[in-house]
Amino acid sequence: MPMRDLTIRDLDVADLENGFLETLAFLSEVNLTPQEARPLLEDRCRAGVQTFVAVRGGRVVGTASLVAERKFIHAGGRVGHVEDVAVHRDFQRRGIGTKLVVHAVKRAQALGCYKVILDCFGPVAPFYSRLGFREFNRGLRLDLPVDL
Amino acid sequence: MPMRDLTIRDLDVADLENGFLETLAFLSEVNLTPQEARPLLEDRCRAGVQTFVAVRGGRVVGTASLVAERKFIHAGGRVGHVEDVAVHRDFQRRGIGTKLVVHAVKRAQALGCYKVILDCFGPVAPFYSRLGFREFNRGLRLDLPVDL
Repeated sequence: MPMRDLTIRDLDVADLENGFLETLAFLSEVNLTPQEARPLLEDRCRAGVQTFVAVRGGRVVGTASLVAERKFIHAGGRVGHVEDVAVHRDFQRRGIGTKLVVHAVKRAQALGCYKVILDCFGPVAPFYSRLGFREFNRGLRLDLPVDL
Repeated sequence: MPMRDLTIRDLDVADLENGFLETLAFLSEVNLTPQEARPLLEDRCRAGVQTFVAVRGGRVVGTASLVAERKFIHAGGRVGHVEDVAVHRDFQRRGIGTKLVVHAVKRAQALGCYKVILDCFGPVAPFYSRLGFREFNRGLRLDLPVDL
């Protein structure tokens, strides 16, 4: 059932104490107090990383982020990286993730990105396919530290 | 045959007129003059994007970039994104790409990244596998603009 009374907007510092960190923990471990998270938010803002939240009843129930990377290729175009999409377990399967990703894509488009890319686990790929994403590349990782 | 007389270092503004843009064009279209590229370099530096070059005989013959993205997850850790690895055609198959990627991984490690990720075409995956990368996720893309 789609949700009414849902707002998608940029993360505000007050959200750090208002469900944001708890929501993100449904994606991966967070282990941060709001006080610890604050300088990280500033660090991300300085780097131009944009964090969006879905708010319902005054609480954060979902989040997604966008890194708009300036390239030299494509005549100085930008690529949008969608990162860290999470919805609080109590509010999943109601279209909040879709709204967040569409919001991030719209922002990327407004910033002049020529494409949006993301990495996801295989079982999540159909969710993104429904939004128009297509499988294109392999996503590789190297866990650090390594002995180099 | 491995190359001697090869230096890997951060991109300098002078490199924009010294083979950098030509080298990058072996990866994808660039279509920039050095003058047009200069503000893009500044934009990338402000965002913390790091661009490395391989220099031989005073000319840029290879490049790779690193976006070190600050996360809220993983207790505020960083993820390194390796981007835009390119080697000039005349100098390919001599280990320059390997040196550039190892350099980027070392930088990511020095910055405290807990992993390095990248997207690549399937045929290039074995190159990264030899460096310790493993296939982990699907890489999806959405070309813009789209009608949202």
